[in-house]
Amino acid sequence: MKHTLAVLVENRSGVLSRVSSLFSRRGYNIDSLAVGVTEDPTVSRITIVVHGDDSVLEQVKKQLNKLVDVIKVSDLASEDTVGRELALFKVSADENSRAEIMQITDIFRARIVDVGPKSVIVEVTGDEDKILAIENLFYKFGIKEMVRTGKIAIARGSKKV
Amino acid sequence: MKHTLAVLVENRSGVLSRVSSLFSRRGYNIDSLAVGVTEDPTVSRITIVVHGDDSVLEQVKKQLNKLVDVIKVSDLASEDTVGRELALFKVSADENSRAEIMQITDIFRARIVDVGPKSVIVEVTGDEDKILAIENLFYKFGIKEMVRTGKIAIARGSKKV
Repeated sequence: MKHTLAVLVENRSGVLSRVSSLFSRRGYNIDSLAVGVTEDPTVSRITIVVHGDDSVLEQVKKQLNKLVDVIKVSDLASEDTVGRELALFKVSADENSRAEIMQITDIFRARIVDVGPKSVIVEVTGDEDKILAIENLFYKFGIKEMVRTGKIAIARGSKKV
Repeated sequence: MKHTLAVLVENRSGVLSRVSSLFSRRGYNIDSLAVGVTEDPTVSRITIVVHGDDSVLEQVKKQLNKLVDVIKVSDLASEDTVGRELALFKVSADENSRAEIMQITDIFRARIVDVGPKSVIVEVTGDEDKILAIENLFYKFGIKEMVRTGKIAIARGSKKV
């Protein structure tokens, strides 16, 4: 099953490699990982999406909690959270195809952030399915490059991670 | 000096911890890191923002290139790239403050993605300065939670990473 973990950590050198090595030591592949500072600059938040055996994940979570730099580990259930990801696509585009690409971009409420003679760069935010859908539509034009941030998530309502 | 590295890696378990430990072993703190799959599902792209001594970074880049799972390391200069980050803010909001929060959200071309009786969740994309600016404006209402993806970047025009 797919899990989204929010891990609050002290903003120190080495924390990220200690956290990620806990997963790799068990052969647990990380689908995506994003880390950035929070409202408190001494604290970073790592959002990790993993899939695999639930009992192994329980062990990983326990060991995460034992790391001195880890403040809190939360397993975010998708129904109570807003999950978003950012992707940048560089799509091949000339004067003939540009209008259609703009149309797709509009429908997905995405944004064209750069235009060159042979390509455009499109910024899109959404859940995994939305990003996959727009990727499939851009495929026929030629995707020169795609970069994704990995998912971040926040609990709905007043509940805090 | 601040650097944005784009590291293309084989999508395998353990790569991320090997990459991040190269930085931490030198006490090099990672400001942000985002990893997600690319247009080729067997390849992931890690975008790392670091600051520190340039000569140490040169060594780290050389050692990154020596890792078997690393395909390519690029140091993205900010003038030739589009850099973006996604942040989710949960801001305290009641019937009195909601209108002002909506106004700020509009000005920043951000989006309200969830509303609760005591809070709203705002999604914003942009560079570091833009996210800092909206954070400062939300501060007076009370930021309950903030999650950031870390920056991703893509070269302008036809140049590929």
